[in-house]
Amino acid sequence: MIFRQLFEEDSSTYTYLLACEETGECVLIDPVIDTAERDLATLNDLGLNLTYTLETHIHADHLTGALKLKALTNSQIVVPAMDELPCADLGVQEGTAFKVGNIELHPLFTPGHTGTHHAYLLDNGMQHVLFTGDALLIEACGRTDFQSGDAVKLYKSITEKFFTLPDETLVYPAHDYEGRQITTIGQEKNRNPRVGDNRPQDEFVDIMHGLDLPYPRKIDFAVPGNELCGQCPDDVPEEYRGPCDTISLPMTEKRLRKSGDQG
Amino acid sequence: MIFRQLFEEDSSTYTYLLACEETGECVLIDPVIDTAERDLATLNDLGLNLTYTLETHIHADHLTGALKLKALTNSQIVVPAMDELPCADLGVQEGTAFKVGNIELHPLFTPGHTGTHHAYLLDNGMQHVLFTGDALLIEACGRTDFQSGDAVKLYKSITEKFFTLPDETLVYPAHDYEGRQITTIGQEKNRNPRVGDNRPQDEFVDIMHGLDLPYPRKIDFAVPGNELCGQCPDDVPEEYRGPCDTISLPMTEKRLRKSGDQG
Repeated sequence: MIFRQLFEEDSSTYTYLLACEETGECVLIDPVIDTAERDLATLNDLGLNLTYTLETHIHADHLTGALKLKALTNSQIVVPAMDELPCADLGVQEGTAFKVGNIELHPLFTPGHTGTHHAYLLDNGMQHVLFTGDALLIEACGRTDFQSGDAVKLYKSITEKFFTLPDETLVYPAHDYEGRQITTIGQEKNRNPRVGDNRPQDEFVDIMHGLDLPYPRKIDFAVPGNELCGQCPDDVPEEYRGPCDTISLPMTEKRLRKSGDQG
Repeated sequence: MIFRQLFEEDSSTYTYLLACEETGECVLIDPVIDTAERDLATLNDLGLNLTYTLETHIHADHLTGALKLKALTNSQIVVPAMDELPCADLGVQEGTAFKVGNIELHPLFTPGHTGTHHAYLLDNGMQHVLFTGDALLIEACGRTDFQSGDAVKLYKSITEKFFTLPDETLVYPAHDYEGRQITTIGQEKNRNPRVGDNRPQDEFVDIMHGLDLPYPRKIDFAVPGNELCGQCPDDVPEEYRGPCDTISLPMTEKRLRKSGDQG
């Protein structure tokens, strides 16, 4: 398996590249529209063509690169099935492995940060690697104050779905804001200040309800844009338009061609 | 590959178990005498027989479990060749991979914590995993004030041998004192408070020389004992004798038998 951890600075997002060496199939988990070209250059350097993009959830802090990458590579857009996004090509759900060549990713329904959040577990008997999305971060977790967030559900997702995995399980989160890259299940069970050290649910809920976080910068255009798999809505503020403008032409051409309306 | 990260509480030491699934051969990196039985129980649960013990360096903070494990399982004792320990069965050196079945561990001569310290890199093209011993710890590093320690050499070991590896390289240290289990090369390049963020050598040396650490509790018996691969010297203080007493009988029997002096 080829693996790369890629970082998008503006939203501190980690995008993960996994590729099956035997078949050449590959996936980008949580790609960001701003770094779509960088991601494609990385794939190109590795001699890979993008097969899939895969979302953990509908993001509020960045636009997904899914639609832009599909426009540029014809990759398939994969999202949690319960998101019911008409723009997606495939839906995944807990209980059915999503296969990227010989790599099996097991979707784990882990609501709490959003109502339909999923994590992805790679467990081939030898390696235990968990992509936690925004549900569990390094010594932190995703906020629960918007998008059907629910602190009780997040507590159950973390303690019942994640903390029951082997302690050595490598944890790759969707974000880190302090230059960290990785943690493990054991490390978070020991050290996570919100949910580690067997903290009870009611204390976790009190912590989450007391965070008093600022309103997300990009949520007003990111959520509707991501419900369209990364389409740039018309109301993207000027300072965030850049990555949208660069895709408008190929996307429009491709989509019109595909729809048969023109050309 | 089977992998386990095992912890010895008194010295906060991580012992690593690696086993080749194809051949059943396995190694314990930096086993501790106090937890030798626990390690063997883990191996037993996995259906494995111990093939090798492998040391990163001559420890000052615990007695190695190498000799005890050899007495109990007939495992071979592997150490850096430049340690020139007559008690060892095999010596490893940089430039020659040490093979445990199909697992190749590449020794990296990384002096500074001790004069002959080695790290071990597992790099099969797909996985990059580095066992750093005491040279690089999570947001820390080994001390340099005894056993031919040298802050300039440690700086070069970390920046020239470790920080030139891919950022995604998983870093498993020989110790953590705060419940952490893992880091990466990229994370330490970013965040290590002593050597990260491109800190220059002279500043690192000043930090190391200013640490003013207490005299190690076990050094007076651990170093001579580890120069005998984990033989308990007569002057082990009573409070640390426990794991020594439990091995004296089988070790003596075995060694006498092997030497042909008796029985």
